[in-house]
This record gives sequence, C-alpha cells and structure tokens, in this order.
Amino acid sequence: MRDTLDAFHLAIPARDLDEAYDFYVKGLGCKLARRYDDRITLDFFGDQVVCHLSDKWEREVEMYPRHFGVTFRHQEDWQRLVKLAKTRELTFFEEPFLRFEGRIEEHESFMLKDPSNNLLEFKYYADPRMMY
Amino acid sequence: MRDTLDAFHLAIPARDLDEAYDFYVKGLGCKLARRYDDRITLDFFGDQVVCHLSDKWEREVEMYPRHFGVTFRHQEDWQRLVKLAKTRELTFFEEPFLRFEGRIEEHESFMLKDPSNNLLEFKYYADPRMMY
Amino acid sequence: MRDTLDAFHLAIPARDLDEAYDFYVKGLGCKLARRYDDRITLDFFGDQVVCHLSDKWEREVEMYPRHFGVTFRHQEDWQRLVKLAKTRELTFFEEPFLRFEGRIEEHESFMLKDPSNNLLEFKYYADPRMMY
Amino acid sequence: MRDTLDAFHLAIPARDLDEAYDFYVKGLGCKLARRYDDRITLDFFGDQVVCHLSDKWEREVEMYPRHFGVTFRHQEDWQRLVKLAKTRELTFFEEPFLRFEGRIEEHESFMLKDPSNNLLEFKYYADPRMMY
Amino acid sequence: MRDTLDAFHLAIPARDLDEAYDFYVKGLGCKLARRYDDRITLDFFGDQVVCHLSDKWEREVEMYPRHFGVTFRHQEDWQRLVKLAKTRELTFFEEPFLRFEGRIEEHESFMLKDPSNNLLEFKYYADPRMMY
Amino acid sequence: MRDTLDAFHLAIPARDLDEAYDFYVKGLGCKLARRYDDRITLDFFGDQVVCHLSDKWEREVEMYPRHFGVTFRHQEDWQRLVKLAKTRELTFFEEPFLRFEGRIEEHESFMLKDPSNNLLEFKYYADPRMMY
Amino acid sequence: MRDTLDAFHLAIPARDLDEAYDFYVKGLGCKLARRYDDRITLDFFGDQVVCHLSDKWEREVEMYPRHFGVTFRHQEDWQRLVKLAKTRELTFFEEPFLRFEGRIEEHESFMLKDPSNNLLEFKYYADPRMMY
Amino acid sequence: MRDTLDAFHLAIPARDLDEAYDFYVKGLGCKLARRYDDRITLDFFGDQVVCHLSDKWEREVEMYPRHFGVTFRHQEDWQRLVKLAKTRELTFFEEPFLRFEGRIEEHESFMLKDPSNNLLEFKYYADPRMMY
Repeated sequence: MRDTLDAFHLAIPARDLDEAYDFYVKGLGCKLARRYDDRITLDFFGDQVVCHLSDKWEREVEMYPRHFGVTFRHQEDWQRLVKLAKTRELTFFEEPFLRFEGRIEEHESFMLKDPSNNLLEFKYYADPRMMY
Repeated sequence: MRDTLDAFHLAIPARDLDEAYDFYVKGLGCKLARRYDDRITLDFFGDQVVCHLSDKWEREVEMYPRHFGVTFRHQEDWQRLVKLAKTRELTFFEEPFLRFEGRIEEHESFMLKDPSNNLLEFKYYADPRMMY
Repeated sequence: MRDTLDAFHLAIPARDLDEAYDFYVKGLGCKLARRYDDRITLDFFGDQVVCHLSDKWEREVEMYPRHFGVTFRHQEDWQRLVKLAKTRELTFFEEPFLRFEGRIEEHESFMLKDPSNNLLEFKYYADPRMMY
Repeated sequence: MRDTLDAFHLAIPARDLDEAYDFYVKGLGCKLARRYDDRITLDFFGDQVVCHLSDKWEREVEMYPRHFGVTFRHQEDWQRLVKLAKTRELTFFEEPFLRFEGRIEEHESFMLKDPSNNLLEFKYYADPRMMY
Repeated sequence: MRDTLDAFHLAIPARDLDEAYDFYVKGLGCKLARRYDDRITLDFFGDQVVCHLSDKWEREVEMYPRHFGVTFRHQEDWQRLVKLAKTRELTFFEEPFLRFEGRIEEHESFMLKDPSNNLLEFKYYADPRMMY
Repeated sequence: MRDTLDAFHLAIPARDLDEAYDFYVKGLGCKLARRYDDRITLDFFGDQVVCHLSDKWEREVEMYPRHFGVTFRHQEDWQRLVKLAKTRELTFFEEPFLRFEGRIEEHESFMLKDPSNNLLEFKYYADPRMMY
Repeated sequence: MRDTLDAFHLAIPARDLDEAYDFYVKGLGCKLARRYDDRITLDFFGDQVVCHLSDKWEREVEMYPRHFGVTFRHQEDWQRLVKLAKTRELTFFEEPFLRFEGRIEEHESFMLKDPSNNLLEFKYYADPRMMY
Repeated sequence: MRDTLDAFHLAIPARDLDEAYDFYVKGLGCKLARRYDDRITLDFFGDQVVCHLSDKWEREVEMYPRHFGVTFRHQEDWQRLVKLAKTRELTFFEEPFLRFEGRIEEHESFMLKDPSNNLLEFKYYADPRMMY
C-alpha cells in the first residue's frame, strides 16, 4: 500500500506538446496541471507525468525494457480503461491479454502507444499481493 | 490525491540485476518483491519499479527527457532521503538544489543515478498543489 | 467531515473560455479535466467547477448572495493560497480580513474575482467545528 | 480525490429562510449548522451551503449557466437520492435522465429546484474518472 | 480506533425541545439533523444524540453514574471546546480539572450541564491508549 | 462521518460489575479496557462505555427517554449482531423490527437489556444520510 | 482496528537464511526489506518478521503454544492465500478447517510450516468483532 | 504501510493466565477480548496476541531469536510507552537504548519481559522506511 499524499513522478519525451495533450487529456482522461513552452505536466491517475518537448523519442518501439502505467487494485477499474481506450480509439500496442496464466502472478494487461512512441501498460492482478 | 490501492508501474533497463538489487534494495531501501532470471520487481516507495535485464541502457545520461522518482508531500521525508543518499554514498547526478525559486512552483530537488544510468529525481514543493 | 469519493459540482458562467482557463488553471492552479466548445471542466481543489460559455455573467458584482470557494481545515493551506494569489497577481475583491472577531465563528477570509465577475471566497476557521 | 478535511463553500440567495430550511433540512436531509437573522448555514452532503436572505433570486430559471450539486462515486447513493426526492415530493426541474449516452462521459443526472429557484444537480458517472 | 462510518447513538430526556436546540445547536455547535414533535436528532461531534421530550429528566444532578461526552485524541480539540463553552457562557458542572494525576490514566476533563440536567463530560488523555 | 480518533464516552450504572462484565465482554463481545473497584471501562464498538457500580439503576425500564447503542452503516454488521444476540441468548427488550416503514427515515432496529436494566439499541438505516 | 502506520514486529529463528528467503519471499510472496549476515527482515503482510540465523529452532513442532500469522478481514484474502499455498506447494501443517463451528467465534483457518518448523496460521472470522 | 482491517496474530505460552492478564491488561494497557479456561485473547496495540496456558515457556531467556512487539511510526508513541513501563514498574529486559547508531537503520528500542519470560521489544526508527 502506498501513501496517498506522495506522488510518483515520471518524465518522458514528447515530440509535440499538442499531440501529447490530445493523447493524455482528451484521450486518456488525465488532467492538465500546468503547461510551459517546453513541457506539460499531468495528473496521471493520481501521479505526475511530465511530457518534455524533445527529439529523443523512440523511433523503434519495443515492449522492453521501458514502459509505464498503472496496476489497478480493482478489476472494474482496469475494465473501464479498456472500454475507454476502445471507445476513444486510442492506439493499442497490445490488445488485452493474460500473462503468467495459472500462476499466482497471473494478471490481465494491455498496452497503449502514445504519439511519441512511449508505451503505457495497465494491469490487474487476481492476487493483489503480486502487484509489486 | 491518489488512490492508496492502485500502484504506478515503471519498467526500466538494468545492465546487471545484482547491481540493480544493490542500488535499489541495499542502497535506496526499496523492498524486493520478486526475482526472475530476467528481471527484479521492487516496491519502490509504494509503487512498482521493474528492472529488466537489457542492453538498452543509456550510455550517455542527461536530465531530460527521461527520469523518474517521488514527489514528497512532507519536507522531512525529502530530507531523510537526502540523508540516506549521502550516508550510503549513492551517486548523485545533481546535488540538492532549488528550482523555480520565488515562484509558486518552487521546489527542492536532487537526482541520483543508478548503475545503469537511469536517473531518479526526488522533489518537495512548498505548495503541495504544485505537485502535479 | 465529507466523503473523499464524492465531489461537489458547481456550474458558473464564463464570458470567455480562454480567459477562464487562464484564471483557473494558470492562475489559481486548478487542473483542467475536459474542454468542450461551450465549457471547460475543472478539478477545483478536489471538487468540480464547470465554466459554461454564457452571456449571463454578472455586470455588477457584490459579495452577497452568490459566491463560492473552499474552507480549509489547516491554516497553512489558507496562507499558501494568499501567497499564490499575491505572487500571481490575481484580482482581489477583498484582501485578507478577519470576520466575527472574538466569537467562536471567527475566521480569516479573502475574496478573488474571476474574469467573469464570479466571486471566490477562501476561509479558515480557528475552530474547525464552525466550518459548516 | 478530494481532501476529507476541507469543505467546498457555496453561498446562494434565499427569498425566505424558513422556506429554505424546509427544503434543505426537512426535504433534502441536510443538517442545519447555524442560523442567523440573515442566513442559515448547512452541512450539505459534507460541504457547506449558506442561504443568504436576499431579493436577488432568479425569477426565471434555466439549467445554464448556474447550478450546483453533488457527483456521487457510487450509483446507489445517487439512486437513494432519487428515491428521497420522489418520496418527499421535492420539485424536479429535470427528471432522472442520461446525458452523453455511449460516450465515456456518460452519466445519470436529475435536477431539483429549491423555493428560491436555485437549481441543484445530482450526477453519477459510470466511469468515475469523468467526475471532473 | 473506531469505524468512521458507524455512529454511536444516545437518547436522552429533554424537558423542552427549544431549550435543547438552543443548548446543543446554538451553544455547543452541534448540527440539527431532524426535528419531530417529540424529539430532535443531532449530529453530536459525529455521533447521534436524540433529545426526547420527556418528563423523566433528573431533578437532582450528580456526576455518577450517568453522563456522556467525547474523549478527544488531540488536546487542541479539547482546549477549543473549553474556549467555546466559556465564550458562549454554557453552564459548567465542573470547571476544567485534572483527574488521576501522575498516573498513566491522567486526563483533563470538564463537565457541562444541559437545560434538562443531563451532564456532558469532555476529556483529553495524555496517553491515547487510555481513552478506553 | 465522524473522526476515527476521538471516542464517544458514556457512563452508565451497574448494580454489579461481574454481571456487567459478563454481559458486555462475554456476551456482547466488547473488550475490557480497565477494571477498578468501582467501575469497568469498555471498548464498546470502538467507543467508550463505563459501568459505574451504583445503586441508581432503573427498576422500571422503558424505551424512552434513555437508551444507547450503535447505528451501523452496513446492514451485514447489524445482522451479525442480531445473530450474536440470539446465539448467546442475550435478553431482548425488543425483537428486531422496522420503524418508520415507507419513509426515508425507515430503519431496522432491536433493543437489548443489560443486567442493570440499561437499554441498548442497534439500528440500520437504508439511507445512511438518516443516521443522524 | 489497528493503526496503519505502526507495524507489529516478530523475531523468529531460521536454521538457514536462504531457505527462509525461499519460503517467505519466493513462496509466501512477502517482500525482502533487508538482508544481513545473521538475519533477513521481511515485510510480512504489512508487518515486520525478522528471521534470525539460529540453532534454537524447534525440532518437534506442535500447534500450541507458539505460532503466528494473519487474521484477514475479508474472506477472499484468506481464500487467495489458500490458493497460493496450494499452487506453490507450501507445506501445510493443517489443511483448511473450521474451528468453533456454530459459535460466534467460528472461523476458518489453515496452518503452514516454514523450513525451520515455525508455524504460521491464517484465519478468517465470519464476525469480524471476534478477530481479537 | 499495512491494512487497517487485517490483524497480525501471535500465540505465546503463559504459565498462568491471571499473571498474563495482570501484565498485559493492567500493566501494558492492552484490552482483554476473550477469556477461556486455557487462553486469553488480547487486543495488543491493534493486533491479536493470545496467551495459551502451557508449560512450554522459556526458563532461560535470551534476546534472540524469539521476541515480538511494535515498531511505532511516531516517536511520541514510543516515549509514552517508556513512561508507562516505568510508571507501572514493568520488568525491563533492556532499558531504552540506541541500535545501529549513525546508520540509516538507527532506532531506539527497549525490551520488556512478561511473567512467562516472553520478550517484548518496542522500537522507533528515525527513518520510517527502515521499519521493515
């Protein structure tokens, strides 16, 4: 269990800030906290993601080793996000799938790709003790 | 404010898992949740960080656009981590400094570098409404 | 004490949405949740304020009977907001003052005016049982 | 998510305080916190609503741009309030309806009218991330 | 530690409901939840007290065996209530005093008398484990 | 909603402390906090009840105006207590019944009698806003 | 209800620390907090268990008087742990069983044995008031 | 951080139940939950300790490998317990001392001995991340 008051902080590259705004705020439903010339800061599911205007975005995208996202405690939150991503036609890198089936670490997952090729993964574990 | 029950999830590269274990568990005081041949999973300040064994780590390290860490709600938590990092002689990428001085976004920060050149930033804002 | 999960919802007029965005997001530090052609929705200190594009804004502004805002439980949150409003040069309708001095209902307050003449009041009571 | 300890504060006009008391306390089930000659203060679903005795109440009532209410996190709370409003025969401005059907912002809503023509809206979103 | 969601419930006699309302709502700052011909129900520091119109009130009043009140976890809440009682000139049955001095059960206390001779005690223990 | 950290405090008469211990601890499942020659203190559903050895207990017992107990937020907690009282053969003053049927204030209730004729009432309201 | 911030602390013997690590971290899914030459410290379901390298482990193992574990508030958490223990083939000292059947203290339980013959019990009570 | 709703459960030997009751309830201020012929169950700082009547208590007592207790998050809770133990003249096995001085794991500690030679340790860490 984590502290409600602290926030995880992640900085990622964005090749274009309007594009990033469209994906994260209008698409994924994050809130825009601040906008500067070279970055936008987001309330991303209660944590902070900052998109920095940068040319250092990935041209080739692979699942490993870099991606980020949220592990939900409740399955219905994961399912709602699947629905949102499909309804709003966000770009899936991986459609919903099951990983580690039959093991205690079993979890449902799907991955999205933002316009700068950053990968987002959203997970739900049947046994919440495996969230870490 | 974020939900206590969900967890942020971040995957990063590690050139060597023992090295990553030493930095995150023995150094930074994170808890080891699981260890596989190709990754270790960590309870990182209440969120999940996964170190994937990978050759895709940064040879050159810059502050932007990629780094991650925690924004603390209470200044004493930030100060304790400064003390831990100095006592345990972790590698600083940036010594503690003040950013945006005199503005409402003013915050204290410092940055560490893990053995695979991933950058970690830990922040404290005088006005907690600026955490996002 | 109120429920963390529900949200108060307030709809107010805005003569111009960009102006409202500037005041609430860039000025007051609220988060932009959604933007439509005829409204913006805001995470206003954890509750929802919606600015509707409308010609029905007040040309003459008086303290009573309409205004809204936040009553803080902790004095330092109120003080931080005074500082933010002064640093960012928001328009005060009333500078910080003390109301009901010497009575149990005594509280500190100040009022801001948004660009559409909506009044915002932010209060702090010495005895939190008087917040209602 | 909002802070349990702070309270949203809204001041509205009332043409008659006894009438307002009857609607908010005996009707809607709010608690009376304080009564003065020129106002009553209410614990309104955990936030503060103050009814100021005033002649500035709306003679013509429209849905936009001014109304207020609560967005519930749990559907059963919204349903209970529908039942309360019907059982106690409060005045509906809008019977329960669905807005933004088929979109992620889809929500159930109904609107009441208080004796001074203030409009109250109570909502429930299928996806709680759309509450803002 | 008790559950936030349940409420203690206490029914006491009142020889006159207006008198009870004056003492509990206007004096002690409790909130009026409901009023019937034969009773008023109160939000009494987060619990429920019901004053029943009754002739069975105590003509002679003693500290034991019947009284009720609140044991505060934080001393400042106790002190604020002392101030409120003095400022609003409520009737003290016992001025603030120290009981069990020098023992671990040591606590500060004072007692009020409502208009129907019900006794209210408000306490603060230096060691919160002694609150029970 | 009440504060988790404070406790309601109620003092009642007991004609015999062993009898009181048997009823409250062995019967009702409360926890014994402290025992003195003239009183026992109990953790009663998270609040404090003190049984004072006294001859001033009620010889004749009536529902009004004096009784106390708990209003549960969740129906299953109320139902479990009905089961406990029946399984352990506690003395019912009123078997489970429905009060204010068809009204918003509708609630389920039952009343127990302790060995000193103190009445305890345990309630569950369909609409939790009526708990006060 | 216990405090979220404090932790129970239990020290037990381990004849071998790698064996203890395998049982508690890889088997039971606890997190490794720290490792020293003579002990490992664990985040054991939110509390702290320390395995001290020691020759004083029990050669003969009995249910009484020494064992430890967790009493879960929710049955599904207990059931998930049964599943984990069976899937990962941990050593059961007692298969899942019902104790005190038909009494209010009725609870489900099972017991595991760690490699140093320490016994672990995991319980679920139908009536959570019996958890103590 | 641990779950408020679950409880740690520890069973220990007691050579005499009255003696155990005196130490834990009258001395240490724990609450008695239940008493049977062969055991007493305690609410021990929010967790459950059960004293089983048994001849298997330690005749020789050593700090390692077996002891239990509480690690407090707030230093004042630790200090209050030192005061309680001294005021009530409980038997110290170790007077308050500092362990791991100058290291991040530095903590204050003291140990008590119950009448059956079970050792209790109460700790406070300057850096709460070291509590595990």
